[in-house]
Amino acid sequence: MSKYTIGINFGTLSGRAVLVDISDGSVKASSVHAYKNAVITDHLPGDDAPLPHDYALQDPNDYLEVLKRTIPAVMKESAIQKQDVIGLSIDFTACTVVPVDEHNQPLSFNENHRNNKHAWVKLWKHHAAQKYADELNALAHEEKTDWINRYGGKISSEWLFPKIMQVLKEDYELYQNVDNFLEATDWVTSQMTDHVVRNSCTLGYKAMYHHEKGFPSKDFFKKLDPRMENIIDEKIKGDIIDVGQKAGSLTPKWAEILGLSENTVVAAGNVDAHVSPPAAGLNKAGQMLMIMGTSTCDILLGDKETMVPGMCGVVKNGSVPGFYAYESGQSAVGDIFAWFVDDYIGENTRKEATSAGLDIHAYLEQEASKLKIGESGLLALDWFGGNRSILVDADVQGMMLGMNLNTKPYEIYRALIESTAFGKRIIIDNYKAHGVPIDEIYVSGGLPNKNKMLLQIYADVLNIEIKIADSEHTSALGAAMFASVVAKDGHKSIKEATEKMAKVKEETVKPNPENVKKYQKIYDEFKVLHDYFGRGDNDVMKRLKRLKG
Amino acid sequence: MSKYTIGINFGTLSGRAVLVDISDGSVKASSVHAYKNAVITDHLPGDDAPLPHDYALQDPNDYLEVLKRTIPAVMKESAIQKQDVIGLSIDFTACTVVPVDEHNQPLSFNENHRNNKHAWVKLWKHHAAQKYADELNALAHEEKTDWINRYGGKISSEWLFPKIMQVLKEDYELYQNVDNFLEATDWVTSQMTDHVVRNSCTLGYKAMYHHEKGFPSKDFFKKLDPRMENIIDEKIKGDIIDVGQKAGSLTPKWAEILGLSENTVVAAGNVDAHVSPPAAGLNKAGQMLMIMGTSTCDILLGDKETMVPGMCGVVKNGSVPGFYAYESGQSAVGDIFAWFVDDYIGENTRKEATSAGLDIHAYLEQEASKLKIGESGLLALDWFGGNRSILVDADVQGMMLGMNLNTKPYEIYRALIESTAFGKRIIIDNYKAHGVPIDEIYVSGGLPNKNKMLLQIYADVLNIEIKIADSEHTSALGAAMFASVVAKDGHKSIKEATEKMAKVKEETVKPNPENVKKYQKIYDEFKVLHDYFGRGDNDVMKRLKRLKG
Repeated sequence: MSKYTIGINFGTLSGRAVLVDISDGSVKASSVHAYKNAVITDHLPGDDAPLPHDYALQDPNDYLEVLKRTIPAVMKESAIQKQDVIGLSIDFTACTVVPVDEHNQPLSFNENHRNNKHAWVKLWKHHAAQKYADELNALAHEEKTDWINRYGGKISSEWLFPKIMQVLKEDYELYQNVDNFLEATDWVTSQMTDHVVRNSCTLGYKAMYHHEKGFPSKDFFKKLDPRMENIIDEKIKGDIIDVGQKAGSLTPKWAEILGLSENTVVAAGNVDAHVSPPAAGLNKAGQMLMIMGTSTCDILLGDKETMVPGMCGVVKNGSVPGFYAYESGQSAVGDIFAWFVDDYIGENTRKEATSAGLDIHAYLEQEASKLKIGESGLLALDWFGGNRSILVDADVQGMMLGMNLNTKPYEIYRALIESTAFGKRIIIDNYKAHGVPIDEIYVSGGLPNKNKMLLQIYADVLNIEIKIADSEHTSALGAAMFASVVAKDGHKSIKEATEKMAKVKEETVKPNPENVKKYQKIYDEFKVLHDYFGRGDNDVMKRLKRLKG
Repeated sequence: MSKYTIGINFGTLSGRAVLVDISDGSVKASSVHAYKNAVITDHLPGDDAPLPHDYALQDPNDYLEVLKRTIPAVMKESAIQKQDVIGLSIDFTACTVVPVDEHNQPLSFNENHRNNKHAWVKLWKHHAAQKYADELNALAHEEKTDWINRYGGKISSEWLFPKIMQVLKEDYELYQNVDNFLEATDWVTSQMTDHVVRNSCTLGYKAMYHHEKGFPSKDFFKKLDPRMENIIDEKIKGDIIDVGQKAGSLTPKWAEILGLSENTVVAAGNVDAHVSPPAAGLNKAGQMLMIMGTSTCDILLGDKETMVPGMCGVVKNGSVPGFYAYESGQSAVGDIFAWFVDDYIGENTRKEATSAGLDIHAYLEQEASKLKIGESGLLALDWFGGNRSILVDADVQGMMLGMNLNTKPYEIYRALIESTAFGKRIIIDNYKAHGVPIDEIYVSGGLPNKNKMLLQIYADVLNIEIKIADSEHTSALGAAMFASVVAKDGHKSIKEATEKMAKVKEETVKPNPENVKKYQKIYDEFKVLHDYFGRGDNDVMKRLKRLKG
């Protein structure tokens, strides 16, 4: 008799549930629900006042709606009995922060606070807390803290404490009304179980938490702001558990809402990127998963904790329990190609595509694929969204050189793809240079499945075979796997779950030795330009950005 | 009783005649005729064999057709009596070379040679003689010749001797059949007068000739190739006269063909760029004319001969008699904007233009004009066609930086225009640094009249008022002015002709002091990148070009 778990992935614009057979990882049903209030950037719902620049808020009710709609939908579609659904787990964007009251209800649900922007969820890409991140980083370096090195030397404005500081500094009255600041993944989980736990993964990556060493000291927080001295006790409440551990069971109320059994066990909430590696089959140190979409996030498994400059962070049990998980990333990847294809393809190319019976993406890929390596003479820096790793610099910008009057749009398209592969090579070489080995590369996400040329370019630039996750919903599958580990009749360990449930394609993409040699020459040029524009030789990009005014 | 002259401008694709009243420079009639064989790049007319790369040939019969069609046409249109047309002069692309036989007939007119590519006219942009230019330059520096410095240190593959060397080295038999290598402007002039003269302007700029010092020595040519020892006597025949001097009178045959009087005097042939300054009113040292079109050519008047590195050349009486004329240029200007607008404007921008009721150029100009200086954060190097001045390097290529995911097409459009203004600033600063003053700037050509924003950008970047030639046909008007000087009842000097006939707009474009300050900062950045990529710090562009294979 088969058993099943449900994984729910909460993305930036929608949530998706998959119901999975734990014996083989096969997806029996899936359902998606778009958030009604999507990303709130211009004004709060029901309010005309404009929000400041760089705001990105969400409505936590949208998350509950995902649960209420998608889980009954997959139950109905699969026609599986509720007692056979033994576990449930969610994964989420992060760091996405819900300020709640003493009843664990979001402040934005309260009529008294509904018109206050700081009462709403601050989404991962809320970028209005940069100055607080700057303060925090300055102090961390001034105080010579050790923990700052676990984050490549820099805390991002996207993370927990800068976001909390923004509330404290800009609206102390509201801050006093906040009983707890929760990661959205932990808050949604706590709603179903009526019990607040915090997963150590988001705490590790986004909240300066360390398994053995805990949080930064009271003294540090006091220096940051005297009102923050006891912030951990006062505003960061809840037991800390690892991913792959049990958060609780469904309450009778939620069991009924979802159409599930009260015996369904709920696993600790998790992060979308960090939940994916087991679903792609990663279970050894030295394996890295690149999750490629509009941006790229890398999760690399290691067997020890090493300080690597420019990485996003390293956290014990941060992805696959039993390993240290290193995170790094590129702020814009698919976004760069979309920028170019959406706005820079003229009528001539569009007509050629139509004549060839292809859509514009397929036509560009076809023509770009015909180019020999180096044939265009173009070389670009992939900093169109700044540089997340390893420069950790939002102020560097894109660059391209080698254009002449014969340069074609498909040549630029290919050069942009190559630039992201070179950027990845910098990240990988940096890990290796700091003693963190990388032996195997996997990819998941929307981009690799749409673009075969891209994977060959990556294999050739990185000189490594690339294995491809074989699921449309890698992170939701990962969440379902974590659920299978906490359930009574489930798998004994994430290792066992990975062996049974992971999905990776037979076919891999292998580097071509001739191509590797040719790309090495171009990468050598990329590296020189990367360092020249990125490491202070010529800060022209930053100076020009300041002149923008 | 008014007197008239005719100026005929031979461009790359067509020839245009204007009939002008010498009392005030007003154009009474104009006529244009396109060359039937245009630019021959793929195969010779009536022959299927493909031509090698970088060939650009022409059919001299097309030039004669221009005379036969346009001059009768302007006579008819203006209804002016032929005895009142007192002079005629032509200007031409250069260096455009006609190999002729002992009867002054092009070898391509001879059935025996018609299928030989070297029998045809090598157009200015024939670029297949680069290796011979390289040989010549290497020897000139090895021998420490002084004349090489008059050309900024480098002879271009476009010029006379590399083109002749190509014939000699690749087809010595045909070379032996060549009685004379003539500039097209001198050949067409000689057809009408039945008398071969060479104008010292093209000889000066394109044939290493100096008013006082003559050509390079026999010894130099012998070292280049023993067969070239006596090349000047053997293949460069004809009396040398200055522009503004008389070449001859119309033969009875040509007077009849053209419908003109035999008394019509023909002035020395001239170069399209160098004939233009008087037509725009230049008559003082320190005045510079920028002729802006697909590329830009600068002619600067000076009162002494100074060696300026990176200029194209300096020639006494090379433009306005009585002055030294310095030439410099940018290989691609309007061509860059056309490259971008033709192939890189996507559907969104096109729709916005349609909604605004504007064509795409007008819409881009409108949106780009709204930008504050520096607002886009973009900076480009204008090397999409290599760099003519002052790097004299065909192998450097375009560059742009500062792009991000919000960068708009009209921002790139403006950055490309700005890049050409910064490139011009480099040229101007280089003249000044070498002691050649520039006090006044004039513009002519198609580009300035179409693009008001461009002129303001140039005025602000160069921090100088810009005066605008007020003629659609500045070079043909210039040719008509030179004709007026040699005719019996014409003007006494080019100075007098300039005072009477030159056309310059009342309205000028003045620099805005605020804009000047802002552009200074961006130009400082441009200069650093110019030197980094152009002067050997990082030859990435050249290395990438070599990798193209």
